[in-house]
Amino acid sequence: MFKDLITKSRTYRRFYEEVQIPTAELKELVDLARLTPSTSNSQALKFRLCNTPEETEKVFETLGWAGALPEWDGPKKGERPSAYIIILCDLSLGKNKLYDDGIAAQTMMLGAVEKGYGGCILGNVQRSRLAEALGIDTAFYSIDLVLALGKPKEEVVIVPVKENGDIRYYRDDNQVHYVPKRGIDDLIL
Amino acid sequence: MFKDLITKSRTYRRFYEEVQIPTAELKELVDLARLTPSTSNSQALKFRLCNTPEETEKVFETLGWAGALPEWDGPKKGERPSAYIIILCDLSLGKNKLYDDGIAAQTMMLGAVEKGYGGCILGNVQRSRLAEALGIDTAFYSIDLVLALGKPKEEVVIVPVKENGDIRYYRDDNQVHYVPKRGIDDLIL
Repeated sequence: MFKDLITKSRTYRRFYEEVQIPTAELKELVDLARLTPSTSNSQALKFRLCNTPEETEKVFETLGWAGALPEWDGPKKGERPSAYIIILCDLSLGKNKLYDDGIAAQTMMLGAVEKGYGGCILGNVQRSRLAEALGIDTAFYSIDLVLALGKPKEEVVIVPVKENGDIRYYRDDNQVHYVPKRGIDDLIL
Repeated sequence: MFKDLITKSRTYRRFYEEVQIPTAELKELVDLARLTPSTSNSQALKFRLCNTPEETEKVFETLGWAGALPEWDGPKKGERPSAYIIILCDLSLGKNKLYDDGIAAQTMMLGAVEKGYGGCILGNVQRSRLAEALGIDTAFYSIDLVLALGKPKEEVVIVPVKENGDIRYYRDDNQVHYVPKRGIDDLIL
């Protein structure tokens, strides 16, 4: 059932970095995004695939990891994503396609989860630095989102939001990662 | 396989309007969106469900249907969506959560397709008019996207983009709806 896939698709930030994701599999994820709806069918999004140690290291240096865990710098070497898909907008075809970015990112992430991977949709990106590192010409492309991917090496648990309303995620002493989520009745007007 | 669901999830604009979608099923779709990632785990999106003839008629009047088919006014009575999910942002929790809107919209649409429905993610919405029609206070909520849902009553076919690069969708004499999509190699930098 689709709900199983959605439930399994948690945001992961620590990985078995030694587990590589082949380019062919990353392409299969892009092919899923290719089939999704886009604003006025503009199909303005393009994708840059990174899965070599040289490139993933460059990408990693430009990412901000977990706003709610300020004492944590992000995954240490050996636990970093083994691949990234950079979601770009082709400025000759459109711009500000943020809905489309979300549709494509979620679609590719669910495809990755089906393949036994997991990851994190990152908006906290030093975009100019990333563009320079990968040789992306920002006159032609905007960097919209970064999909970090790998084989997850952490447990992520959804918990109800406490009475004080705090929705910040946290970790326990065993480094289990807890994510408070509002209940369904809080979401429907 | 997930790709089957993605392939089946086309944008539909004509429906068997007499096929109702129960509120319980719409809630199941919102529950899927509840489990998706959101910017900084803000969970700022809220959802308004509409599946009565009185409400769906009001919603319909505020929607723009198919930019590439200017001679078509949208689905006629009897072929209109039988339900809508209005995606709102709770302005006390955040704003401009457009990535999150895309993630939630695509997630709910895929859930709907699994249930045998289909629909259209609509951004062409007269938002002030819709807010007034449904009594949504725009001091507290922005209307972001509208998910139109129903049992599809049309055939939608993906075709390659022609050499002239035209990506506008079109219909043939039998009202089959064709959607040109770029090939995978055009999407990867």
